[in-house]
Amino acid sequence: MGSKNGEAMRNKQAIFRDFVTNGVFPKESDMEVTESIIELTRAVSEGSKGVLVKNLYLSCDPYMRNRMLKLPASAQSYLGTFQPGLPITGLGVARVLESGHPNFAKGDLIWGMTGWEEYSLLHEPETCFKIEHTDVPLAYYTGLLGMAGLTAYVGFFEICSPKKGETVFISAASGAVGQLVGQFAKLFGCYVVGSAGSKEKVDLLKNKFRFDDAFNYKEELDLDAALKRCFPEGIDIYFENVGGKMLDAVLLNMKLHGRIAACGMISQYNLEQPEGIHNLLSIILKPVRMVGFLVFDYYHLYPKFLETVLPQIKEGKIVYVEDIIEGLKNGPAALVRLFSGRNVGKQVVVVSRE
Amino acid sequence: MGSKNGEAMRNKQAIFRDFVTNGVFPKESDMEVTESIIELTRAVSEGSKGVLVKNLYLSCDPYMRNRMLKLPASAQSYLGTFQPGLPITGLGVARVLESGHPNFAKGDLIWGMTGWEEYSLLHEPETCFKIEHTDVPLAYYTGLLGMAGLTAYVGFFEICSPKKGETVFISAASGAVGQLVGQFAKLFGCYVVGSAGSKEKVDLLKNKFRFDDAFNYKEELDLDAALKRCFPEGIDIYFENVGGKMLDAVLLNMKLHGRIAACGMISQYNLEQPEGIHNLLSIILKPVRMVGFLVFDYYHLYPKFLETVLPQIKEGKIVYVEDIIEGLKNGPAALVRLFSGRNVGKQVVVVSRE
Repeated sequence: MGSKNGEAMRNKQAIFRDFVTNGVFPKESDMEVTESIIELTRAVSEGSKGVLVKNLYLSCDPYMRNRMLKLPASAQSYLGTFQPGLPITGLGVARVLESGHPNFAKGDLIWGMTGWEEYSLLHEPETCFKIEHTDVPLAYYTGLLGMAGLTAYVGFFEICSPKKGETVFISAASGAVGQLVGQFAKLFGCYVVGSAGSKEKVDLLKNKFRFDDAFNYKEELDLDAALKRCFPEGIDIYFENVGGKMLDAVLLNMKLHGRIAACGMISQYNLEQPEGIHNLLSIILKPVRMVGFLVFDYYHLYPKFLETVLPQIKEGKIVYVEDIIEGLKNGPAALVRLFSGRNVGKQVVVVSRE
Repeated sequence: MGSKNGEAMRNKQAIFRDFVTNGVFPKESDMEVTESIIELTRAVSEGSKGVLVKNLYLSCDPYMRNRMLKLPASAQSYLGTFQPGLPITGLGVARVLESGHPNFAKGDLIWGMTGWEEYSLLHEPETCFKIEHTDVPLAYYTGLLGMAGLTAYVGFFEICSPKKGETVFISAASGAVGQLVGQFAKLFGCYVVGSAGSKEKVDLLKNKFRFDDAFNYKEELDLDAALKRCFPEGIDIYFENVGGKMLDAVLLNMKLHGRIAACGMISQYNLEQPEGIHNLLSIILKPVRMVGFLVFDYYHLYPKFLETVLPQIKEGKIVYVEDIIEGLKNGPAALVRLFSGRNVGKQVVVVSRE
């Protein structure tokens, strides 16, 4: 379906109803899928550098949990919170319908920040990337070739400064980012172990992503013991996606001059008061470098990342597991599913396959 | 007093009696000052590269607390624990009496790892530095010109990558390291605030070390509020010496791309179970780089450090406050005093002024 100037079109939207109370698990009903009208004549007005897009694939990401909370500015991510009454925003893949911006033309495919709706008017399209390579599944640009991929690449190679033969532990290892960190680390020559929350996910880690070892953290009575079993000599690199008890156990098992890339702490996002971390002294005793990072600070590495990863995908050296849900109307369910860890692999919502 | 080969000399020693139970405050009686005999003929035997020294000044340092505990290897500092029945070991300034090592000659002054005793036979003297500049107080080599000084220098300049005009917070700011970090940061052009545990120390910070502001953490009901008062725009750099509740409050007040140099967590060393840190998510949200470091990894920077600091001392740009206790027999009391924060400035024990 194309767009015509002057036309008013129905625009299905996933609206953020209101802030979720800290400590309460988000429900589908915290969002509402409704329909509004978008007037295309006004969409890209004269002199504006806006771009009107048709959204195709939307990305469900753990950081979105934080944006559902009414938090003091000091505890917000720098993207701020969602706005009650307006559509959820997030990363997605979209087709340009009209463009007031010199970088984008009608028909271009892009990925970047967009709305959870059928059509979005993007006011800052320069924050989006134009998609040049379409000989891979387009949905990959919500994950493997989008923020998750760049996050895994930057977090592992730039933040952790890995050396061949080092030991690498990844939590939430079958997720959008974790599965890639593990594959990058294996290709680089590291010993890689991952944790995940179901037998199905552990099987994926061992058999599909070729990790050296993996365990189901829900079945381990003692995480410290599980880590000592997998890493008798300790951990050089920890790629942190979960926080809480796992981080505390990892801190006891870091090797001298270990590195922790702090990417997420999803186990903590639904707690009113985050769990206390008791073993931070390890950071000094070993010593350990623990670095939080935002992938947005590393967007300049995206071309280099693509250059590395595209051939690896085509040669079958990197595989990617997605959990695809059809239809914007199921978007809220997909997001809630991600927060509860019921997804297997990268959680994607299909708005339209065009 | 010189040494004579063939002579047997009395050697007063501060012996480590036994491990201190985790969570129990160390007492003077955990150490014992006794006398043994050192036979100088055998001290530096033929073919050995050992060095016999007369100890002059001993350094009391927070990391020594950890060495008094019987801990699993994973929780020990890489120096290991003290050995029950043997003298405490630590950094000190000493005079070489006999040398089997080509780098050191009789009469040289050195600083480095030595024993808490009048005379020590050092088996690895190459880990010590020869003192070349003696136109400053010799005791400075236990602090300002020793490990504390290099720690402050490395922690601030190498770990924190400061920029002029940035805001710097230092805990335990009147201590051996803190007072220097603050002065380095002021000379560099930063806005500097420190916390300490008494009015006397806060006065030192403001008046002697010329910090921009300082507060007594024991008089603040709400550390978060105290930090917001001192840093309405947030903290760029935190030099961490205490851990616990202070770290948790600081995490809420870090600015985007803040840096934390984790040097010590002295508030936690006497607790059976360290306090939980609840606000680590800030490390991702801001994001923040939190780096533990061991000064031993940066010894190669010592000449550069001396070159920078010696002129600053001579020009009166850097001052240093020491808390000097006379006599090895008072060594155990000095160490306990440090752990309880009753010292004001760098805690030094004088064994002999020669």
